[in-house]
Amino acid sequence: MSRKSSRRTTQRASRSSAPVVWPGVQGGQFLPLDPGQIDAIHRAALVVLERTGMGEIPPVVEQALAEKGLRVGSDGRMSFPPALVEDAIAQARRDVVLWGQGADTALELRGNRVYVGSGGAAPNVIDRSTGAYRPSTLRDLYDAARMVDALEHIHFFCRSLVATDLPDPRSLDINTAFACLAGTGKHVTVQASHPDHVAAIADLAHSVAGGRDAFAERPILSLNINHVVPPLRFDADSAGVMAEAARLELPFHINSFDQAGASSPAALAGAVVQAVAETLAGLVFAQAINPTCKAVFGPRPMITDLRSGAMTGGCGEQAIAMAAAVQMGRFYDLPTSCIAGAADSKSPDVQSGYEKALTVGLAAHAGCNFITQAGGMQAGLMGASFDSYVIDNEMLGVILRSVRGIEVTEETLSVGIIDEAVRGEGHFLGAADTLGRMTTEYLYPALADRDSPEEWEASGRANLSQRAHQFADRILAEHFPRHIAAQTEANLRATFDIQLAPEAMLPLGSRPAGQEQKA
Amino acid sequence: MSRKSSRRTTQRASRSSAPVVWPGVQGGQFLPLDPGQIDAIHRAALVVLERTGMGEIPPVVEQALAEKGLRVGSDGRMSFPPALVEDAIAQARRDVVLWGQGADTALELRGNRVYVGSGGAAPNVIDRSTGAYRPSTLRDLYDAARMVDALEHIHFFCRSLVATDLPDPRSLDINTAFACLAGTGKHVTVQASHPDHVAAIADLAHSVAGGRDAFAERPILSLNINHVVPPLRFDADSAGVMAEAARLELPFHINSFDQAGASSPAALAGAVVQAVAETLAGLVFAQAINPTCKAVFGPRPMITDLRSGAMTGGCGEQAIAMAAAVQMGRFYDLPTSCIAGAADSKSPDVQSGYEKALTVGLAAHAGCNFITQAGGMQAGLMGASFDSYVIDNEMLGVILRSVRGIEVTEETLSVGIIDEAVRGEGHFLGAADTLGRMTTEYLYPALADRDSPEEWEASGRANLSQRAHQFADRILAEHFPRHIAAQTEANLRATFDIQLAPEAMLPLGSRPAGQEQKA
Repeated sequence: MSRKSSRRTTQRASRSSAPVVWPGVQGGQFLPLDPGQIDAIHRAALVVLERTGMGEIPPVVEQALAEKGLRVGSDGRMSFPPALVEDAIAQARRDVVLWGQGADTALELRGNRVYVGSGGAAPNVIDRSTGAYRPSTLRDLYDAARMVDALEHIHFFCRSLVATDLPDPRSLDINTAFACLAGTGKHVTVQASHPDHVAAIADLAHSVAGGRDAFAERPILSLNINHVVPPLRFDADSAGVMAEAARLELPFHINSFDQAGASSPAALAGAVVQAVAETLAGLVFAQAINPTCKAVFGPRPMITDLRSGAMTGGCGEQAIAMAAAVQMGRFYDLPTSCIAGAADSKSPDVQSGYEKALTVGLAAHAGCNFITQAGGMQAGLMGASFDSYVIDNEMLGVILRSVRGIEVTEETLSVGIIDEAVRGEGHFLGAADTLGRMTTEYLYPALADRDSPEEWEASGRANLSQRAHQFADRILAEHFPRHIAAQTEANLRATFDIQLAPEAMLPLGSRPAGQEQKA
Repeated sequence: MSRKSSRRTTQRASRSSAPVVWPGVQGGQFLPLDPGQIDAIHRAALVVLERTGMGEIPPVVEQALAEKGLRVGSDGRMSFPPALVEDAIAQARRDVVLWGQGADTALELRGNRVYVGSGGAAPNVIDRSTGAYRPSTLRDLYDAARMVDALEHIHFFCRSLVATDLPDPRSLDINTAFACLAGTGKHVTVQASHPDHVAAIADLAHSVAGGRDAFAERPILSLNINHVVPPLRFDADSAGVMAEAARLELPFHINSFDQAGASSPAALAGAVVQAVAETLAGLVFAQAINPTCKAVFGPRPMITDLRSGAMTGGCGEQAIAMAAAVQMGRFYDLPTSCIAGAADSKSPDVQSGYEKALTVGLAAHAGCNFITQAGGMQAGLMGASFDSYVIDNEMLGVILRSVRGIEVTEETLSVGIIDEAVRGEGHFLGAADTLGRMTTEYLYPALADRDSPEEWEASGRANLSQRAHQFADRILAEHFPRHIAAQTEANLRATFDIQLAPEAMLPLGSRPAGQEQKA
């Protein structure tokens, strides 16, 4: 009947089991910028890259871009000619597909397909017994990965916690990759703190994937790279990481992380311009290293509370600025990522609910391919909560259902069905059409509350938070997936200094005597 | 620079104090239906009205539409010819402005202007001391009106509670109108349970407004009318109410209230088709009574949990179906209302937060002119919560800020400001541009939590819910506005059987001796 409904029909038909929502459901109906505004932002970003350019050019960038004819000027800055930037956009890959270890885990980062996942790199976790923020550990990271592994509406596991109990950055990077890949069969995204660590992460990921070729075909791990110290300066280590990732053919995410009013303009349009410019600079550099690199465009105009200088990730300014940045990525037709769900609230309460729903909802409806931080985070990314993963999974189902939208076909318009009901039973309950759509069009929540006030009172006022806490307890106690084959794990433990104890990867009851306490 | 930015500049310039968000901020960037889908739904609605038509035609409708050449057929149904429906759409008023008693309360229901308010007609309120659902009273209704009066991001007071302590429907209707108009200076929307009550409500509203002419110029009250018993049957009393409202030149809202899968098709497209058809039938009828009536188009495709048959107002299906219905109203360029914020959760918790933010957020971004139930409701409209009004007011500020969007101008693109910052301080903190935008572009929450985890712990883990409860206590104890002049009130009490005790309209401390207990 129309472009969109035929697209959706195709989309549905390609899935055998016809679930109500699915990874990669198509967004793109929220268009906060009109075409003239998109063009203005694009042109402004080109002007910024040419006139102001990038500063603090590390040797790896200087060398790579010298081949493109770029030089560091007398002011210490490197100007990016518009034609070069336009070429980079034109030549970028539009076929980036990320995979997990499990079957049916492909994330096809193109068009308006929407995938939501974790993320955050928080230094804290909310302790399950005290409710207090405490430094997060490697064990917490593994547990978070297991948690996401079990939650159907969270499509990938972007490292959400920093294991603060590791001795050095190299150990952190290697153990982070291992803990994530051990905990979940979904796609994993991690960071590398130094260029020298990238090869080790790649080796580890290749082993888990079954070899370098297998990884190249189905990359199970990607790197988040913040290559910029805003405004418009390269970060030497991160640029080095990007160069290594591009060379080693690890997919990576080119992310700015600007804070409007602090490290980028207070005007939201300007914040988007700068984030886009910085991200494009990263793309130009990455392509100079490897023209066929698998890169994801991730401009992140974050918002600052200008009274304190702290980040505020749950506000309306954040929701709209990030959706606009997403729209720029869709305009370029690049695989696009963003941050949403960085609630300011410290716990999964009503504030957290509305902050996450608005920021994730608008990013998803804008058609973002890879929404990080969409589940699990509190306190403006300063802490993760296991309960929040479960709660946010419920929310993400609701959001994804709204993104799926309304199929308009001769059949769904229901003209004949309406006439039949009116002239027949006088209602639609129990009709074949109704029963058929119950399981294909309506998403019934697993834990959220739909009781009547009377049922709610009779249940002792049970709510989603309580149910989620119990559900999280059960996952943490019982869900110990074995995504990495035993022999592969043994090899990895022999090769790398893996700090996650084998006992931590077993359910409590099946641990060797004397190990229960360590859990 | 573009259509939208010039429109926004005009919008801003017309306001003297340049607040960060304002009533009537322009939405319309969320377009869940493409033009082909809109056209298909419109045509299907016309076919439904012609082929299936409306049933249970009361005399008032039969008589009014006989003048248009319509007859009840042998099947007891009245067919609506497409041309007549199209004429009604074409002739409908597009200049409906609703007012409150206060200055600066105009709600200009046109274009993509977004206003959010209360609503719900709940039979219960959450008791402030026990947290339990209990039957709501006239006093609760007055208190809810006072609460909304004090909350800046709630733009109108649509009757949210049913005063269950009144002796009969006439007393209910008159006292509801009085309690609402006494409690708030914002626009008030009520219902009439019988056609005979409409003239009394109009008399009361005329008195408060300062006469019939003053009311005609600035209508401070409108009527919510559910004229249909879906599928496609007129409700005799409500049709009579509509006729009276149209004759007496009271503005009114033509609302269907269908439940998909129960009283309308399970397919969301069909649910929208039927709701649009029913609402258009109401518009045809209303115009037959008075061609210049002030009517608001309110198709309401509500969602049913098909396992229980109960309404579920917080789900993703609801968010997208209602946004699509709003888009149909925008397509017709009619003043358009909808329901959003009908959270299923029983209390203002995380589920309530995400359910309200998604449903209200998408309705607002779709450009709905009059979003009812956007604040205060829980349990799928079965109960209201005073704390929820305060909490939702915070949320609505955030949503409205996102709806305001991003202004794109040469200045906001910030190309020069970026260059200056890069070559100067290296950051944007404290820059004149940043300081200037702090108060004009950034909305700082009054109660929501932006503390660091350390501050939060030190505060005893204070959160929005606690602060909102205290704030609600303060409003209830202190905010007793006198919108109705003393003499007018005396006249009304002499004319009507007003049940709200004068003492209830005074702060606790200033009540006559012996009246404190009654509070």
